[in-house]
Amino acid sequence: MPRLAYVNGRFLPHRGAQVHIEDRGYQFADGVYEVVPVAHGRLVDEELHLDRLERSLRELRIPMPMKREALKLVSHELARRNGLTYGFVYMQVTRGVAPRDHKFPKSVRPALVMTTRQMKPAGEKTLAEGIRVITVPDIRWKRRDIKSTSLLPNCLAKQQAYEAGAAEAWLVDDDGTVTEGSSTNAWIVTRDGRIVTRKATQDILNGITRQVLVKVAEEEGLTLEERPFTVAEAYDAKEAFLTSSTNFVMPITRIDERSVGNGHPGEITGKLRRAYIATFAPDGGVR
Amino acid sequence: MPRLAYVNGRFLPHRGAQVHIEDRGYQFADGVYEVVPVAHGRLVDEELHLDRLERSLRELRIPMPMKREALKLVSHELARRNGLTYGFVYMQVTRGVAPRDHKFPKSVRPALVMTTRQMKPAGEKTLAEGIRVITVPDIRWKRRDIKSTSLLPNCLAKQQAYEAGAAEAWLVDDDGTVTEGSSTNAWIVTRDGRIVTRKATQDILNGITRQVLVKVAEEEGLTLEERPFTVAEAYDAKEAFLTSSTNFVMPITRIDERSVGNGHPGEITGKLRRAYIATFAPDGGVR
Repeated sequence: MPRLAYVNGRFLPHRGAQVHIEDRGYQFADGVYEVVPVAHGRLVDEELHLDRLERSLRELRIPMPMKREALKLVSHELARRNGLTYGFVYMQVTRGVAPRDHKFPKSVRPALVMTTRQMKPAGEKTLAEGIRVITVPDIRWKRRDIKSTSLLPNCLAKQQAYEAGAAEAWLVDDDGTVTEGSSTNAWIVTRDGRIVTRKATQDILNGITRQVLVKVAEEEGLTLEERPFTVAEAYDAKEAFLTSSTNFVMPITRIDERSVGNGHPGEITGKLRRAYIATFAPDGGVR
Repeated sequence: MPRLAYVNGRFLPHRGAQVHIEDRGYQFADGVYEVVPVAHGRLVDEELHLDRLERSLRELRIPMPMKREALKLVSHELARRNGLTYGFVYMQVTRGVAPRDHKFPKSVRPALVMTTRQMKPAGEKTLAEGIRVITVPDIRWKRRDIKSTSLLPNCLAKQQAYEAGAAEAWLVDDDGTVTEGSSTNAWIVTRDGRIVTRKATQDILNGITRQVLVKVAEEEGLTLEERPFTVAEAYDAKEAFLTSSTNFVMPITRIDERSVGNGHPGEITGKLRRAYIATFAPDGGVR
């Protein structure tokens, strides 16, 4: 059976799934999205993702395309039909289809698209070696707390990282502080063992993994500071890592041309990764 | 015959014209567009629009979807088939369809969509009274010179203007200077008759009407300063107007709660509008 997508009320073969050319998502990036991880066939932190989806939509004054319970039924059904065991459900909501005009159209129905992707967990080698990030200027708009599809600058930064042989780009604001990665949140551990990550203001997207990890760190009795950190502070850190719904907690061992700490994934990073994964896979079935 | 759209090689009824849900324009706003005005059935300043399209694509490293001459044939054919006499051709090019991943996909073909819209020229009343603009913070990204579809902040600003009973929002940078409107360029005329509009840097989109009007102003022997101006300077101006491909030169008679000059469309504004229209409609067939 071909992989299916859900598009405005119908389950369709992914390959032929389409939206109208005047969907405002296509012409204006007037929409939001969520990437909900799936492990052992179950959606991870689903309620938190839906909380954030509702918040993003509320900020843009786009109504929910259907009630939350219905949205859950659809995403579960799509994951089930596609035999999804490990990967993610992608859901996108736009303001809908209307003749092109910047201002909001009247009486339009929001458009809803969902897809799934089966993927492998991060490899042993990547986790053992850690990844490299580069730093680039943050040129994005000022409402990064809204998970909108206005992602062009994020794509440009990610491509820049890729071409530099790095896995991610850390975005640096005018004041020299790191905001976040192009699709991940940024964390460091200082030489005296304090975990530092930026506070969730309009400067960054409040990652779900980030939210959960803040609690996990507390439960583990670790010291967490929610504040901006500079690139210089990151260079000098003992450990560094990023978080995202598809990476969970990923050790960073190089920032630009510098090794982080001793050049190996850090102890606190490893501890946080295990503790985070235990929140949804207590049997340790996912590394 | 129904209105047609052009989508990736085919002329299709506009109503059913669709693109794939994984077109990067839909998921990432990874694309650019042009709005080419049509008057007397002919595309106005077509070469300048295509110059800018090519530049936007080059900045994003998206190839042209077809050669320039072919693009012109398609747009002319679409305008002809749709019986377009006055209005615009909208063309959008995205990086293409690929499994969702921020970095650029390899070997993907850019997607091309074109639509047309028949519209009426600006009404007598609007031109006689002028329009009102409000000022709002400019929260956009820092590459506004690229005509990307990453337009969510522009939509939010336009909606804010609309709800305030204004026709446009002037976007104000952190330093208190006006960058441009949400879909138009911003101009003032000082009390001593100097025309002021922002220089075309990465801060603004270099409007085609703007480009042509800079030349027109010179030819008319008017003094033009390309520099930023503050909101305070705009409040104090003798005249104000905006330019865009669909508005041409539109007088502004109120900014926020203040009247501009004597509260009526200005003389220099009127002169510029007539001179601009004469560049493509020497017979004066369009007001």
